[in-house]
Amino acid sequence: MLSDIEIATAATLRPIRDVAAETLGIAEEHLVPFGHDKAKVDPGYLSSLADRPLGKLVLVTALSPTPPGEGKTTTTVGLTDALHGLGHRTVACLREPSMGPVFGMKGGAAGGGYSQVVPMTDINLHFTGDFAALAAANNLLAALIDNHVHHGNELGIDVRSVTWKRVLDTNDRALREITVGLGGHANGFPRSDGFDIVVASELMAIFCLTESVADLKQRIGDIVIGYTRAMEPVTARQLGADGALAVLLKDALSPNLVQTLEGAPAFVHGGPFANIAHGCSSVMATRAGLRLADYVVTEAGFGADLGAEKFVDIKCRKSGLRPDVAVVVATVRALKYHGGVALADLGTEDVAAVEAGMANLRRHLRNVREVYGIPCVVAVNRFPTDTDAEVARVVELVADEGVRAFPATHFADGGSGAHDLAKGVLATLDEPSAHEFSFTYPDELSLIEKVEAVATRVYDAGQVTWEPRARRRLARFEKDGYGHLPVCIAKTQYSFSTDPTSLGAPSGHELHVREVRLSAGAGFVVAVCGDIMTMPGLPASPAAQRIDLLDDGTITGLS
Amino acid sequence: MLSDIEIATAATLRPIRDVAAETLGIAEEHLVPFGHDKAKVDPGYLSSLADRPLGKLVLVTALSPTPPGEGKTTTTVGLTDALHGLGHRTVACLREPSMGPVFGMKGGAAGGGYSQVVPMTDINLHFTGDFAALAAANNLLAALIDNHVHHGNELGIDVRSVTWKRVLDTNDRALREITVGLGGHANGFPRSDGFDIVVASELMAIFCLTESVADLKQRIGDIVIGYTRAMEPVTARQLGADGALAVLLKDALSPNLVQTLEGAPAFVHGGPFANIAHGCSSVMATRAGLRLADYVVTEAGFGADLGAEKFVDIKCRKSGLRPDVAVVVATVRALKYHGGVALADLGTEDVAAVEAGMANLRRHLRNVREVYGIPCVVAVNRFPTDTDAEVARVVELVADEGVRAFPATHFADGGSGAHDLAKGVLATLDEPSAHEFSFTYPDELSLIEKVEAVATRVYDAGQVTWEPRARRRLARFEKDGYGHLPVCIAKTQYSFSTDPTSLGAPSGHELHVREVRLSAGAGFVVAVCGDIMTMPGLPASPAAQRIDLLDDGTITGLS
Repeated sequence: MLSDIEIATAATLRPIRDVAAETLGIAEEHLVPFGHDKAKVDPGYLSSLADRPLGKLVLVTALSPTPPGEGKTTTTVGLTDALHGLGHRTVACLREPSMGPVFGMKGGAAGGGYSQVVPMTDINLHFTGDFAALAAANNLLAALIDNHVHHGNELGIDVRSVTWKRVLDTNDRALREITVGLGGHANGFPRSDGFDIVVASELMAIFCLTESVADLKQRIGDIVIGYTRAMEPVTARQLGADGALAVLLKDALSPNLVQTLEGAPAFVHGGPFANIAHGCSSVMATRAGLRLADYVVTEAGFGADLGAEKFVDIKCRKSGLRPDVAVVVATVRALKYHGGVALADLGTEDVAAVEAGMANLRRHLRNVREVYGIPCVVAVNRFPTDTDAEVARVVELVADEGVRAFPATHFADGGSGAHDLAKGVLATLDEPSAHEFSFTYPDELSLIEKVEAVATRVYDAGQVTWEPRARRRLARFEKDGYGHLPVCIAKTQYSFSTDPTSLGAPSGHELHVREVRLSAGAGFVVAVCGDIMTMPGLPASPAAQRIDLLDDGTITGLS
Repeated sequence: MLSDIEIATAATLRPIRDVAAETLGIAEEHLVPFGHDKAKVDPGYLSSLADRPLGKLVLVTALSPTPPGEGKTTTTVGLTDALHGLGHRTVACLREPSMGPVFGMKGGAAGGGYSQVVPMTDINLHFTGDFAALAAANNLLAALIDNHVHHGNELGIDVRSVTWKRVLDTNDRALREITVGLGGHANGFPRSDGFDIVVASELMAIFCLTESVADLKQRIGDIVIGYTRAMEPVTARQLGADGALAVLLKDALSPNLVQTLEGAPAFVHGGPFANIAHGCSSVMATRAGLRLADYVVTEAGFGADLGAEKFVDIKCRKSGLRPDVAVVVATVRALKYHGGVALADLGTEDVAAVEAGMANLRRHLRNVREVYGIPCVVAVNRFPTDTDAEVARVVELVADEGVRAFPATHFADGGSGAHDLAKGVLATLDEPSAHEFSFTYPDELSLIEKVEAVATRVYDAGQVTWEPRARRRLARFEKDGYGHLPVCIAKTQYSFSTDPTSLGAPSGHELHVREVRLSAGAGFVVAVCGDIMTMPGLPASPAAQRIDLLDDGTITGLS
């Protein structure tokens, strides 16, 4: 089979204005073109759709993944293509890939095989400049902080307590911990600082939860950048930064429209981390999709314990959006991995391991249906090494849970490989739901109780323990008026516990909260459990060394 | 009079595809649109024009400026509008403004008054993403350097000798001097580092001197990022970075087309510093303009001692381009400033001071005609406080030098205010030139002799002195095979000397070279004389605090 970039490069793209007009009924005048195959949709036009009925929202999530991933984006695209191919007005809502990792290990992140969004190289690189705008805004705020301190520090910012970091969309471990302001008087006051990758910025989370320009500016103003010596929070508004940052993000806020390889429309917009942020594409795009199409297929990051939980408890809670059905992506490989097979041996048939690994998927299905209250189906995303016996066993085991599973081959076959899945999704949407949508916890619980609710109800943890400092900071957040916010738990995506090697469905484990952070503008409190990397590094042999530009302008080696 | 942003916002822009078609004959299919009023021009189309005859190249330069500036960009736009209005196929080639300073002191940099390029806010902010692409490429190379060292340092890079810095397009003094790689083993080796602003990156200079994708990759590969312990240069090519960086810059390399307020076409593309780099917009844009139009009006940074010298000795030398005429922008204000009047008193009539300050302009005229060998006219860019007597005296004094001076009011009146200037430029182009274009020095001189040639012939310095370390490094550059490169002298723009308070036309001064830097990819050696700031800071009351976004999306306070 061809590589992702070979498939993407060989594809004939239709002009995005034709895709917009024919698939979503958007007239050309409402598009802001970026070249001929990418466009932003005019926000004024989107506002004019406010009275339209909303389509159905399909949330693609997954079991706890293996390190190479289970194909959640690929399944989102494949399912979109299948629904589109079956004649349904459907749009995918995906996260924008981060450029940094493209030059590290992972290659592109715009789907794979014959289920991709295109233009693939553009989407994986600068795209429409949203990430660059976020970086510029983030770093302007950082500069304004140090500038304020340099010019007299009227607000009394304690430079030891500045929590706002700088960002780049580059994998650069050398910037994780730095000292800035060296070199004497003219360069300000030295302090410890660090860079995160753009997707880890609170501004990215804000961007993805924002409903309008006014809301954006409000949220930016609410950002707490650090504290005074008396531990009073200092906001971006106090620095007079909210207007300028909003100006820098204004254009980026309009959703980006591209197409799948099969010509279905896709909004690719925003992409926060799914650990220290909520891991979903933008509310602006989801809402636009629901007004423009009958079906919106969107994904949440990592497994259903992380991405889907945050989709429900953060994105849905804040926006009022509600998923109508969830698609839980499972793979034979991941089930065997959870059943105890080593990563290197996942290509060998092992039905018993599939059965053993089912404990992981079973718990995710329980969470999706009983905790979040969303009806669901399972997509068995087939890999070439899967045997028919293994796949059949997955379908049986899922059926034992009262859930339908649909093997799908969209990676190799495009949308037609996901027709059964699409029909299963449509059938589920037509049935009365046995479940009622619900948050994991109500707003009224204390921050500690909210973390405990997720830990016990979703992760099956036995207890939550706290670093004393983290607990003190939570009390401070509540005193400062942030107790009503939802929590965003940052932990490994490989396990229900905080130990990435504890596979399957561990129970009774301890969830230790090492650190808490306030994302006052985004509107959540992050509880960090375990080591969470917010600035990746490059590997010994980075992809950058294999990516090349030929004299005729052809890009090679991107994936 | 209205502010720049009020004028720009009130303007009715024509679709850029219409401007492209009607003013330059570019069909829509050769444009890559960015919204409806900005476009890149397809590089394949530009290549197809290779056989077309070249238009005339008009270089706009200036006397030594006052700190607020003399309106060089404004004059470039006004002259373009005048030629356009007189029915000549004309295009402006301007530098892209840096975003960082927009949030500091200076507001926009896309002309002013009724001589602006639009859309003004876009051009001053993210525009088409060129600067973001340059930052991403620059910082990927930086990450690859530290990553190489972290993973074994096969090339033996001496981290004390790394010269490649990171960049942001943010005014951020706290990043001038930093320590990176702190925090232990996983974060690499600590070392001293710093951030420059994007326009100060060698990559910006490379970008602006590049002729093609192949040339771009070659130049990137030639970048010397630092040295081994044995002082052997290490190149970006040795790090395997040239392909990936070229990929990141591929789209940016196509010139950006916008329009003036009067609907004339303008390429706004690239913008290197005029001190540590050559200070001109891209060769790609200039060459495109010369093939598409009969007249290209372009500007060089700072005064004619800096920007024009580098235009001649770097841009023209490397590209083969030749200016047909120079327009030296002078103002009554600047002449009085050079004549000894304090900045605060420049609004008061003082013909004697104008006469005294003429020494500065006289020397620039000598340099342009006798050193660079370019015929020239003077544009007297009128300010509201200029009196008729002062302006008349300038015209007389310039005539005494055998040069025609044309008062121009394009700031207040648009292109019609520069009709006389335009006619003067056309008349000069029609006359046989009394001068023959010439570089300030030939390639064959040593690097030291090249600096001496500029110092004595252009600056009228008495002698050049060197920090011993700078001199040793020059010898090293020559030993490493870089002796044939031209030199790029970084010094204050306010004086012919290195002392910004030494106004007028100082002679016999000492040019002290503090430091030298190799820009092997761009292809020049920088001699730093005096303090050159490559990362600006923000003022006590930054413009960012006055820039705002209204709920309806209107941007205020940008200028």
